[in-house]
Amino acid sequence: MKLEEGVLKKDRRALARLITLVENDSDEAQEALRVLHSHTGKAHIIGITGPPGGGKSTLVDKLAKELRKRNKTVGIVAVDPTSPFTGGALLGDRIRMSELSTDSDVFIRSMGTRGALGGVARATSDVVKLLDAFGKDTIFIETVGTGQAEVDIVKIAHTTIIVTMPGLGDDIQTIKAGIMEIGDIFVVNKADRQDADKKVMEIQAMLELGQKKNSWEPPVLKTTARDGVGIPELLDLAENHYRWLLESGNLKKMSIEKSRAELFSIIEQNVEKVVVDRVDEGEIDKLCQQIANKEIDPYKAADEVLAKTGIKLKK
Amino acid sequence: MKLEEGVLKKDRRALARLITLVENDSDEAQEALRVLHSHTGKAHIIGITGPPGGGKSTLVDKLAKELRKRNKTVGIVAVDPTSPFTGGALLGDRIRMSELSTDSDVFIRSMGTRGALGGVARATSDVVKLLDAFGKDTIFIETVGTGQAEVDIVKIAHTTIIVTMPGLGDDIQTIKAGIMEIGDIFVVNKADRQDADKKVMEIQAMLELGQKKNSWEPPVLKTTARDGVGIPELLDLAENHYRWLLESGNLKKMSIEKSRAELFSIIEQNVEKVVVDRVDEGEIDKLCQQIANKEIDPYKAADEVLAKTGIKLKK
Repeated sequence: MKLEEGVLKKDRRALARLITLVENDSDEAQEALRVLHSHTGKAHIIGITGPPGGGKSTLVDKLAKELRKRNKTVGIVAVDPTSPFTGGALLGDRIRMSELSTDSDVFIRSMGTRGALGGVARATSDVVKLLDAFGKDTIFIETVGTGQAEVDIVKIAHTTIIVTMPGLGDDIQTIKAGIMEIGDIFVVNKADRQDADKKVMEIQAMLELGQKKNSWEPPVLKTTARDGVGIPELLDLAENHYRWLLESGNLKKMSIEKSRAELFSIIEQNVEKVVVDRVDEGEIDKLCQQIANKEIDPYKAADEVLAKTGIKLKK
Repeated sequence: MKLEEGVLKKDRRALARLITLVENDSDEAQEALRVLHSHTGKAHIIGITGPPGGGKSTLVDKLAKELRKRNKTVGIVAVDPTSPFTGGALLGDRIRMSELSTDSDVFIRSMGTRGALGGVARATSDVVKLLDAFGKDTIFIETVGTGQAEVDIVKIAHTTIIVTMPGLGDDIQTIKAGIMEIGDIFVVNKADRQDADKKVMEIQAMLELGQKKNSWEPPVLKTTARDGVGIPELLDLAENHYRWLLESGNLKKMSIEKSRAELFSIIEQNVEKVVVDRVDEGEIDKLCQQIANKEIDPYKAADEVLAKTGIKLKK
């Protein structure tokens, strides 16, 4: 049986195997994604991001459990920077496995952010597609951090939840970097700590300063994920947001925009494959050395490489 | 006079104008970069990054002043996320202008991180090239944050300085995200605060855990940038690192790797331009809608677009 057929038949092993192929950017994965494309588009994709230390993983776990209570199946993609210094991804995995792994309707996968940047957002997007085609009702994308990379990854989501906590960052810098604009719901987690209300007010003040992108007004919610406080309410808000997206026509718009990004990304990828296939590696190495030695400029070198591929850009 | 000629003649206005053209990704900028390429490669490029609140901007300002004392000219590219919520870039600019703007041998430019990600790293790289061709001896790239985007931007640098401070982040999470691996020099700034030595030891412990990438052992230095404490020592370390890169042959290797990345980025850009030029916008829109409606998969759509451009990828 082909892996894509396995995924459609809800075979977890086929899913896991295909995710690995996607991460390795194999041709087999591309073929599978091609077939599975028409089976996607049913899941609600929720992005969770925010500064480190805000308790995102706990929040996602509790939301997943709440969804299971509501008889929904769950996929979790944790895009966690792997570093030899921290081993973050692996550790996070292990902690979770103990809590959720007994439930076969929750599928968890950690991904590293190594390699090309476009690559990570793309790989994440493809993994989410696989989970969608597999039939997961709700898919979480959790990323650590507040940088542009996280923003790009979270853009794959329909609903973006920004998680922070009291006392995290004296100033607003920790949640800048364009992250405010992409938040559909703001959460002040660990709300049993001092100054939770102050943090809520800070966020509300910032939201008032910002441009309103549409008729959705991002709510700010307090949670204490560890104790499950605020979790059902947060999930309700997320589901409200999805309903609003659907009814306002914004879901459709997002889907078309995403298709466009995907289309151009595939075009680029195809061209790069052709270059690597058709041009001798030694020739490319030589050109790179010449660029480094300032003997040729990179634009001219690009023209030469394209000429060798047989790709004619000039009319 | 052409702008590129202006840059070579150290005309600051021509430089500023050309940077704007680079940011807007104009054809004129590409032509200028082509011409200027052979005039680059002389500057020492220093990347400065780390969690928000560590005092990076002050550190860069003080390093710039120290360089001026040593009769070196300076360029500063601050890649600062602009957000309607914070206006970070503008503010940073204004504060600096008052301190360094009287010195015509210091050129400061802030850039936002809006738009495509590859775009930011690329635009930063091109702006650094312009400053290099202009004749700046030392160029700083300062970025706020610790995400993968910052890592990508900082990779343009020869020497990367990671700045943190005592009490910032109870755990090591604030400086994970692959940032430890890219640090050539670690700075604990605001070292007059409590626990500075503890922070130094934490970083040293982490460095011992990490894989040694080469014979350079990243030093950890305490500074109090506000008062200028540790600044000459930091600059000496940075210059030592550059000397080590040069003598070990690593500078050459970095330059070839960078050329390779640049070459492929230009190839992609050229192909995208051709697609946009040759394929009717309406047709692309229609395809995107079909992808969104699951009537066609994006891979097949990519084939169709490429067929219309006349770019033949299949032999």
